Amino acid sequence: MTGCLAIVGLGPGAPELMTPLAAETLRAATDVVGYAPYLARVPEGMGQRRHASDNREELARARQALELAAQGKSVAVVSSGDPGMFAMASAVFEAIETGNAAWKDIDITVVPGVSAMLAAAARIGAPLGHDFCVISLSDNLKPWELVLKRLEAAAAGDFIIVLYNPASKARPWQLGEALGLIARHRAGATPVIFARAVTQADESIEITTIAEADPARADMRTLVIVGSSATRLIQGSRGPFVYTPRHAELVEP
Amino acid sequence: MTGCLAIVGLGPGAPELMTPLAAETLRAATDVVGYAPYLARVPEGMGQRRHASDNREELARARQALELAAQGKSVAVVSSGDPGMFAMASAVFEAIETGNAAWKDIDITVVPGVSAMLAAAARIGAPLGHDFCVISLSDNLKPWELVLKRLEAAAAGDFIIVLYNPASKARPWQLGEALGLIARHRAGATPVIFARAVTQADESIEITTIAEADPARADMRTLVIVGSSATRLIQGSRGPFVYTPRHAELVEP
Repeated sequence: MTGCLAIVGLGPGAPELMTPLAAETLRAATDVVGYAPYLARVPEGMGQRRHASDNREELARARQALELAAQGKSVAVVSSGDPGMFAMASAVFEAIETGNAAWKDIDITVVPGVSAMLAAAARIGAPLGHDFCVISLSDNLKPWELVLKRLEAAAAGDFIIVLYNPASKARPWQLGEALGLIARHRAGATPVIFARAVTQADESIEITTIAEADPARADMRTLVIVGSSATRLIQGSRGPFVYTPRHAELVEP
Repeated sequence: MTGCLAIVGLGPGAPELMTPLAAETLRAATDVVGYAPYLARVPEGMGQRRHASDNREELARARQALELAAQGKSVAVVSSGDPGMFAMASAVFEAIETGNAAWKDIDITVVPGVSAMLAAAARIGAPLGHDFCVISLSDNLKPWELVLKRLEAAAAGDFIIVLYNPASKARPWQLGEALGLIARHRAGATPVIFARAVTQADESIEITTIAEADPARADMRTLVIVGSSATRLIQGSRGPFVYTPRHAELVEP
């Protein structure tokens, strides 16, 4: 008997941002597979087996989940945020395409979640209020030249730019180079947001400018948002908000 | 006494994709403000007043909500999907910046939601599995030249491209021009997804290619996703999936 596999987004961290569909899917699973800190966020269910793995073994984790589903289990693979953005969904489809032919018969569903990006934006106002680009700075699976090409395109197009995976111990210099590139296209006062562990207990959110941004402030739990030429700060009752207006003008660099 | 204003994302449509935080915020509100079809998705609460408005009056709706909050009400303004993406959050901050100085003292929060984009991607696989751009094709509030500039940058950068507001009765030709521009940078077989009313009763999702895409298939409830050079189709048990692998190569146009 062939089982099923759901790739489930847990949301950014706060339990009240996990959707009812995600919670229900997790409750119905016989087996839950994921990176250990994400598994810890899965509510205790009805005796599911939990399969924890390291963060860097996405493809191996996807194959393990498909193997369990092929054995007839109801499997949930969990990602933080949304599973389709730089997360497990892509790894599962890659494993299906390159793996055991029988895996194509498994009933696959993807349960979307509130991404870290949307949660970070909400905490600070509405920085993503207009056209934006999302770029992972990790060059583990793509050449750095491609990252530079995309940063250049995003900067030239005056997009708001969201940087996923800005830094880690193994990749300390990429964010500095990326911010330097963007700064050549933007005014020094352009707002930059460092949003770390959004909606989690150790959340920290820093608003700075492209001229002053310190890349050393980011780590693997940080998301960086760089404003477009239109993104602005306003003072609110509890500190500044950052937002990008709905209207925009053509700005020549 | 000054009240509070929450800008709440209802999610894409299905009630089980509305977060518990959104549901709780709506329950606690004395007044709910929004476009009538979105208001109809707000669960019946404890006798809140509902203020319905037309879709094209975002700024007027934002001001009405701020006015109610300034009178001491607990106001929720609702958006479909996520309120920070081409939705009400930006309009509220614009109204605060340009309006009554007292509005700056109102306690403002933004409650993120599962965006239509993330829900559409989840229904079809993992098309947003790598770097992507999000562009609104509406030229109501920005010059069409800026849209073209951003489309050109996104196409040249080999991004996956998500098109919000692809068409309406008043804007019938923009999507054809946009797809034509992107097609000059992409192979004809590049997957294109038309996702309409995702997770709603009348959902329809069509997978086609950039060579065959018919812009007349889109309306104001449609989201269009155009793959990058790496985006691919695989056959699953219940039809094709579209996904973009985690790894990528530099492709010269």
